[in-house]
Amino acid sequence: MGPESAREDEGEPRHTRELPSAEALRLLAGASYGRIVFTLDATPTLRVVNHVVDDGRIVFRTHPAGGIAAGLAPFENAVVAFEADQIDAATRLGWTAIATGPARPVTDVDELVKYTRLLAPWAAGPRHAVIAIEPRTVTGMRLE
Amino acid sequence: MGPESAREDEGEPRHTRELPSAEALRLLAGASYGRIVFTLDATPTLRVVNHVVDDGRIVFRTHPAGGIAAGLAPFENAVVAFEADQIDAATRLGWTAIATGPARPVTDVDELVKYTRLLAPWAAGPRHAVIAIEPRTVTGMRLE
Repeated sequence: MGPESAREDEGEPRHTRELPSAEALRLLAGASYGRIVFTLDATPTLRVVNHVVDDGRIVFRTHPAGGIAAGLAPFENAVVAFEADQIDAATRLGWTAIATGPARPVTDVDELVKYTRLLAPWAAGPRHAVIAIEPRTVTGMRLE
Repeated sequence: MGPESAREDEGEPRHTRELPSAEALRLLAGASYGRIVFTLDATPTLRVVNHVVDDGRIVFRTHPAGGIAAGLAPFENAVVAFEADQIDAATRLGWTAIATGPARPVTDVDELVKYTRLLAPWAAGPRHAVIAIEPRTVTGMRLE
């Protein structure tokens, strides 16, 4: 019965618990990378980026002529989502956290210098556009 | 110089290579779970779901009164994205793949039975709505 029970247990759906906003933001801040969720050509899409959370804002660098910039350019303060998760495919335990709020290009020179230092892009190519998301809501879920 | 060079190498941005559509779909199919990207209350958002790729369609189960159902309900064939990725935070090597196309509730009884058997939901709660995405485009990127 041992191995069979273990298999059965793996197949059991996990209990989901909603996370307090502060814990969800802490998890987002600790993630190595996340996903910016936005609209491009009237279609919802996402891109993977490495980010920092600084003073409550989620900040990342991107290509000034890439998909993210193209998606955000038509709007001032386009509302976007930013997500990170960490779920173990074997145990099916983990968490997901998602922040939603307006995204704005960072234009202040001191801030640009600061974030260009803080953020080393993982992908090659020009990444000198810096975007900051101001979370209005942060939610999260833990599979346990 | 050894450890220092190694550190410098870790900090080097990775080369990104676009993946052929078939390879991106193969990676999506092999992923344990993915992220459905859609619009809810006029805001782009995503949810993590476990899925299967069957006959070229991406299929998953969801709560019939949950966020995904609420986001898709106002539209027939709402165009959504489905993403999976696998990136090693230490080496910064990996891939991301994203399919875009219309999403539809599965209503055929035989298909409902089939997918309910194929898909064991990871999260507890009613998950008897079955959604299928018909990819129109599949793109992907490898960090190498």
